[in-house]
Amino acid sequence: MRLATLTSGGDCPGLNAVIRGIVRTASSEFGSTVVGYRDGWVGLMDDLREDLYDDAYMDSILLRGGTILGTGRLHPDKFKAGVDQIKENLADAGVDALIAIGGEGTLKGAKFLSDNGIPVVGVPKTIDNDVNATDYTFGFDTAVSVATDAIDRLHTTAESHNRILIVEVMGRHVGWIALHAGMAGGAHYTVIPEDPFDIEDICKAMERRFQMGEKYGIIVVAEGAVPKEGTMDAGLGEEDEFGHKTFKGMGQIIGDEIHKRLGYDVRTTVLGHIQRGGTPTAYDRVLATRYGVHAARAAHEGKFGMSVALHGENIDLVPLEAAVGTLKRVPEHRYKTARAMFG
Amino acid sequence: MRLATLTSGGDCPGLNAVIRGIVRTASSEFGSTVVGYRDGWVGLMDDLREDLYDDAYMDSILLRGGTILGTGRLHPDKFKAGVDQIKENLADAGVDALIAIGGEGTLKGAKFLSDNGIPVVGVPKTIDNDVNATDYTFGFDTAVSVATDAIDRLHTTAESHNRILIVEVMGRHVGWIALHAGMAGGAHYTVIPEDPFDIEDICKAMERRFQMGEKYGIIVVAEGAVPKEGTMDAGLGEEDEFGHKTFKGMGQIIGDEIHKRLGYDVRTTVLGHIQRGGTPTAYDRVLATRYGVHAARAAHEGKFGMSVALHGENIDLVPLEAAVGTLKRVPEHRYKTARAMFG
Amino acid sequence: MRLATLTSGGDCPGLNAVIRGIVRTASSEFGSTVVGYRDGWVGLMDDLREDLYDDAYMDSILLRGGTILGTGRLHPDKFKAGVDQIKENLADAGVDALIAIGGEGTLKGAKFLSDNGIPVVGVPKTIDNDVNATDYTFGFDTAVSVATDAIDRLHTTAESHNRILIVEVMGRHVGWIALHAGMAGGAHYTVIPEDPFDIEDICKAMERRFQMGEKYGIIVVAEGAVPKEGTMDAGLGEEDEFGHKTFKGMGQIIGDEIHKRLGYDVRTTVLGHIQRGGTPTAYDRVLATRYGVHAARAAHEGKFGMSVALHGENIDLVPLEAAVGTLKRVPEHRYKTARAMFG
Amino acid sequence: MRLATLTSGGDCPGLNAVIRGIVRTASSEFGSTVVGYRDGWVGLMDDLREDLYDDAYMDSILLRGGTILGTGRLHPDKFKAGVDQIKENLADAGVDALIAIGGEGTLKGAKFLSDNGIPVVGVPKTIDNDVNATDYTFGFDTAVSVATDAIDRLHTTAESHNRILIVEVMGRHVGWIALHAGMAGGAHYTVIPEDPFDIEDICKAMERRFQMGEKYGIIVVAEGAVPKEGTMDAGLGEEDEFGHKTFKGMGQIIGDEIHKRLGYDVRTTVLGHIQRGGTPTAYDRVLATRYGVHAARAAHEGKFGMSVALHGENIDLVPLEAAVGTLKRVPEHRYKTARAMFG
Repeated sequence: MRLATLTSGGDCPGLNAVIRGIVRTASSEFGSTVVGYRDGWVGLMDDLREDLYDDAYMDSILLRGGTILGTGRLHPDKFKAGVDQIKENLADAGVDALIAIGGEGTLKGAKFLSDNGIPVVGVPKTIDNDVNATDYTFGFDTAVSVATDAIDRLHTTAESHNRILIVEVMGRHVGWIALHAGMAGGAHYTVIPEDPFDIEDICKAMERRFQMGEKYGIIVVAEGAVPKEGTMDAGLGEEDEFGHKTFKGMGQIIGDEIHKRLGYDVRTTVLGHIQRGGTPTAYDRVLATRYGVHAARAAHEGKFGMSVALHGENIDLVPLEAAVGTLKRVPEHRYKTARAMFG
Repeated sequence: MRLATLTSGGDCPGLNAVIRGIVRTASSEFGSTVVGYRDGWVGLMDDLREDLYDDAYMDSILLRGGTILGTGRLHPDKFKAGVDQIKENLADAGVDALIAIGGEGTLKGAKFLSDNGIPVVGVPKTIDNDVNATDYTFGFDTAVSVATDAIDRLHTTAESHNRILIVEVMGRHVGWIALHAGMAGGAHYTVIPEDPFDIEDICKAMERRFQMGEKYGIIVVAEGAVPKEGTMDAGLGEEDEFGHKTFKGMGQIIGDEIHKRLGYDVRTTVLGHIQRGGTPTAYDRVLATRYGVHAARAAHEGKFGMSVALHGENIDLVPLEAAVGTLKRVPEHRYKTARAMFG
Repeated sequence: MRLATLTSGGDCPGLNAVIRGIVRTASSEFGSTVVGYRDGWVGLMDDLREDLYDDAYMDSILLRGGTILGTGRLHPDKFKAGVDQIKENLADAGVDALIAIGGEGTLKGAKFLSDNGIPVVGVPKTIDNDVNATDYTFGFDTAVSVATDAIDRLHTTAESHNRILIVEVMGRHVGWIALHAGMAGGAHYTVIPEDPFDIEDICKAMERRFQMGEKYGIIVVAEGAVPKEGTMDAGLGEEDEFGHKTFKGMGQIIGDEIHKRLGYDVRTTVLGHIQRGGTPTAYDRVLATRYGVHAARAAHEGKFGMSVALHGENIDLVPLEAAVGTLKRVPEHRYKTARAMFG
Repeated sequence: MRLATLTSGGDCPGLNAVIRGIVRTASSEFGSTVVGYRDGWVGLMDDLREDLYDDAYMDSILLRGGTILGTGRLHPDKFKAGVDQIKENLADAGVDALIAIGGEGTLKGAKFLSDNGIPVVGVPKTIDNDVNATDYTFGFDTAVSVATDAIDRLHTTAESHNRILIVEVMGRHVGWIALHAGMAGGAHYTVIPEDPFDIEDICKAMERRFQMGEKYGIIVVAEGAVPKEGTMDAGLGEEDEFGHKTFKGMGQIIGDEIHKRLGYDVRTTVLGHIQRGGTPTAYDRVLATRYGVHAARAAHEGKFGMSVALHGENIDLVPLEAAVGTLKRVPEHRYKTARAMFG
């Protein structure tokens, strides 16, 4: 059998571990070969491919962030119009099954191809942990770890200078990184997009800390945080493709408002791209490797139109449609548990 | 309400995060107080207690390995004979519910107290991830991370010297740490207690590597690994309390045998105590904190005789008897997945 | 004998290691006691002091970032006017010698006190490594390590997306952090304040990379970088107290210009406060501890008006005036060596 | 010009950074080419060589532990007998100058070649920091960092179990790693080969801790530690090539003796090979890169028979004979400073 694979969307620690898992399993369990398409759907359309061998190089990419196949973005219309070209390319390359690794958008594309008769298996990928039908996605644990390391470092500098420090982390639509990094980093308040914030409530929490004799505060803010309507002027914002309002620089906006209201020294740090790059954590390497092994097996067992997914201790297969359409948002009870640790 | 808590058995990164989770939740959600018993069951018997306050010190222990309450071991007979003393001590201290944090043995003790009318909630703790009825235990991710970091470092030194390196990791009865660290560290073979090893198979895997032009090999060995009967003389070994045969220094034994059979330069590293100490990973801090929050809530809701447990994305309660009696061992399909990546 | 100590200026990993070094040496070698003044010169003026004991708490601060004594800023005029008050406070507290830990400004203050008859020993502290008369200052290695970790992570994300990534690091007046982190992180270009940059030269270096088939570039920019006159419009900037022109957001300015000139996808990450917080590296813990030991010894040997300093393998004493007045800037030959690795 | 390089002796983090520094400088500053010999002197004798290009692969090895050239050991007699063969090989390969990277033994070999008319530049390499005429060697900071991380982890586990923990670190002849890691890790006692230990003194220090209410102790032991004559039976030991007595398993020997004398629970951890493998610290990457740049320049300037060396802030050249003959041992005053922090 001959498999093809590609990575699409933003990069994410663990992508290479999935590729390695696919290639080694294809070779060791099935004696199959694997071809990789470069730059996501773009390469599938333009037939940019290379053979992936089960060799020392493949072995070495486990620790490497990013994706050796590169990634790219292709307009959905162009993608849909190109389905015949894609079929032709796959046939020319002798490909029996395609494993597409990517986020909600990529899996939507995989579903489209599957609906059009191409044998596809999906592997969910997202730093943000916002894909439905799987407990966790690889890359998320690494992003949370990087953010937590940063928060650990900020505690002592905030304390030494009697400051409030705002840490803006990734999460345009969902607050998973903020939720976990805030809890792991011992933040005194965490703001997530799922629960529009009341600036007054944040200020009260900080006031209470200083009244109790504490000398500083750490607030973790997901980049997609939004104010509760009518509580604070944060400018107009923009509506994104999911209909959520987003504001640029929300960490800074909140910091400025706290300073204005309370007078404390407030500083903002935007963690940015370091959350999505570099060596994956052990957790993410294991999850990504298992995804790769199971995706290769699913392809060999003819289980197409499915995506691998983590459920508890096991890797299962779920229909691609279960993984797309909506984003997995932080449920209320999880935020309530986080709130128990605020202050 | 007034809660009591204690930590028992071997130390484990995240114990302090659980204590902090209990104390803060008791305070922030219920206005309750918490008393801590020192040195595990010993302190409960001998009434060694201290009040735990929801203050800056409590906040600071999140990152700290070990346990601020200390831990100890008490002979089961002595423990059982002391149940009246324990009741008296708890009554004297005005305790309404006890949260016991520990491994399989501790939860067994918690069940015994519960059966004898003491209101107890359990929190599973084990580096080894060998407790039933929960997906994962805190401390495990940290141990795997430390072991993986070590394996990462050993790759290049093994390669530079054309060596086989054996890394002995923790896991006297179960192979979870070896399984995960071996997969995360890109080991070329992993030996776990659940699947008695055939030294011939290991040697063949190493030979194959060198024949393919590779210059080194990494083998991860759980300390509780055992040879398949009749395949290799590893001395007599000893039988442990679960009826498993164990051998001391199994990493070295395997290393010596490989050297004898293949002639390659073989070195053994025993990771030892560094796997169980120090700052917990972000993953373990989140899991331990959630366990603490939910244990405090269970106590306030009168759900006694239960243990908190991770199931997928959620923290549930399971009866204490579900968590004790047997150890959670690595299932065959997980080892098969690991094997797909060997070589 | 009775020593006093204080920390002044921005916080810096290793401050607590110095304090611990002073307290333990005073106790173990001389049987002396130590008093700490809070919030830098402010606490010395306002007599905010506490006894520092050679106990388990003191032992535990070695790993802790920030400063347990807090830090603060006092206007030089107010400080100078308060010299009699300071003398009185020190006399009241029975202090025989003061050890002042801080940057160029603090050491200037220490010299002023020394010139006015107060027995003072200085300990140089600066993240930026800009203090004269010492090879290195503690905190610098930690800042470089944090920045290097970040750059390591950015390589793979830049490569996966065919991007140029600008990393802005600390260094308002000097480029030491940029120089070292750029070299350690394998940056393809590094911009430091000591050598005004020619945007054309940077663009050429990036162009050359892409022409050679590389797919990305990493540029490290010290926050105090300035354009060579007449080469690029970067706004007006401001003059700082040392007469250097500084621009806010120089990383972003350079990134925008490169994008405008070359058209590549360019992103900027500002590392910010994470460079100055958190656990010091082993190197900084050793250097800071040795500074503390030697400062305590100097105080007991009556060597006042001096500062400890690292020269090669040894800790020496230098007159306070040698450490102040000018900043230690990156010499031309060091930047030439860095340039050998660009591209 | 055409340079050759090789790495010899034990592997060490930073070797690849030196190679990269040589290749890039040769290319960027001089337009020269570089050939690498495999497996140290062995490859120079057997003419195992490969061209090293200034390409993306060369760029990527900065972070990689070990050595891409491999390393090996050759008997000095064989080496000396082969000098004509070496000359022939270098001539055949068109090599104008050889840069030899290695420890004391390798530099001795380099001196021999230089004395026999081969143009050689040396680069000192040793984890142990035992090479004379340079302040520090690369690899040392990484080894100290790894050991310090381990000690950090051991504190909390020792404390939770009221244990004394012995940590055996590398250093067969010199105590630099023990000295620095012990100071950075806040060890309560450190034993180095340079100062034969009195077991009674160690026991007293531990006793004092427990009497003061402390609950644990950490002792760092260099593997080459030796007992003061007549104070303790540690077996016969062996004499090494420098005439020092060495004992195998000294950590365990000391631990057993403390347990016997004091009765406390004592455990020993041998850090082993993890100290010499893996990604170099930022400090070591900078030092190694600078060594590489300066060695390439020295070769182009015809400064043969010299070794690069770190003196304070600068990289200098010293005659090869200054770097060989004796090992750099920890001076008494450094151990005295360490002792100030014991207990």
